[in-house]
Amino acid sequence: MPIVTVQMLEGRTDDQKRDLVARVTDAVSETTQAPKDKVTVIIEEMNPAHYGVAGERPSDKV
Amino acid sequence: MPIVTVQMLEGRTDDQKRDLVARVTDAVSETTQAPKDKVTVIIEEMNPAHYGVAGERPSDKV
Amino acid sequence: MPIVTVQMLEGRTDDQKRDLVARVTDAVSETTQAPKDKVTVIIEEMNPAHYGVAGERPSDKV
Amino acid sequence: MPIVTVQMLEGRTDDQKRDLVARVTDAVSETTQAPKDKVTVIIEEMNPAHYGVAGERPSDKV
Amino acid sequence: MPIVTVQMLEGRTDDQKRDLVARVTDAVSETTQAPKDKVTVIIEEMNPAHYGVAGERPSDKV
Amino acid sequence: MPIVTVQMLEGRTDDQKRDLVARVTDAVSETTQAPKDKVTVIIEEMNPAHYGVAGERPSDKV
Repeated sequence: MPIVTVQMLEGRTDDQKRDLVARVTDAVSETTQAPKDKVTVIIEEMNPAHYGVAGERPSDKV
Repeated sequence: MPIVTVQMLEGRTDDQKRDLVARVTDAVSETTQAPKDKVTVIIEEMNPAHYGVAGERPSDKV
Repeated sequence: MPIVTVQMLEGRTDDQKRDLVARVTDAVSETTQAPKDKVTVIIEEMNPAHYGVAGERPSDKV
Repeated sequence: MPIVTVQMLEGRTDDQKRDLVARVTDAVSETTQAPKDKVTVIIEEMNPAHYGVAGERPSDKV
Repeated sequence: MPIVTVQMLEGRTDDQKRDLVARVTDAVSETTQAPKDKVTVIIEEMNPAHYGVAGERPSDKV
Repeated sequence: MPIVTVQMLEGRTDDQKRDLVARVTDAVSETTQAPKDKVTVIIEEMNPAHYGVAGERPSDKV
């Protein structure tokens, strides 16, 4: 604990994902006082065809 | 808000997914009075080998 | 399958939740051809202090 | 998008939760280039009796 | 890793939850070869009014 | 109900996944008294580049 799940559209680089894991871990540890080695970060990438807002998908607007 | 996640076995067409996002958004907006543009729908497709009921997987029954 | 999880801020009435379960089940069944008796709907209510957009929580703006 | 879910044991103060939402939003926006107003943060608090590691629950060790 | 989330209707005793965490940890560790101290189990209890199958909620049938 | 989601790093064999579904179903049914045919198990595999503990990813340590 804590376990942080980041759902985001696919397309970020491996460097961005590495920085995301590091920066989110710091943010959670520093605000909740959970030791950094207890913080788990999970990235869930999404296909634009599997995501919609207001009833529409980004993949239908390109 | 609201955020709707639909977990289902892989295999539906892109048209089915488009209709699913639109119809679920309408259903949620009309029953909860959340504005349509605030409703997010996420589709999570599952491999039949990663899903089981009563201890068995559909992929083991074909 | 399918399993539908609806995350929304707390505050809806029991009638709204009943209608939400029924209407979302119809929307998913009719667009994916999954039999209605295979569709599970789960409602997860959220406390406004546990939710934020753009770094701010609705509970901090009242 | 992105949607960030933070699961953690109950017990943090409201101030900690406000800072957590703000700092996690910054961390995600700055590393993924997603605009801050597109970042959603959800906090899910857990009862120690509903959480275990290595087969044991913290609530059984006090 | 692995992280196991068990969603179930509220109502089980604390003893049942303790046994659930222990037995699920054993089952996951023994079949995936993940060390037991790396296995996290999370229980998410659900209110019968927040759950439905085939468009109906158990709470509406009592 | 219950619905069990097992998040784990990719790489297990199909046999391991079959045993995991069967053994987790038994563990949940026997401790919660939920009938086996009501227990759903979902496996979510993760890419090592999408997972981190203490701010670091296993994929960055190889």
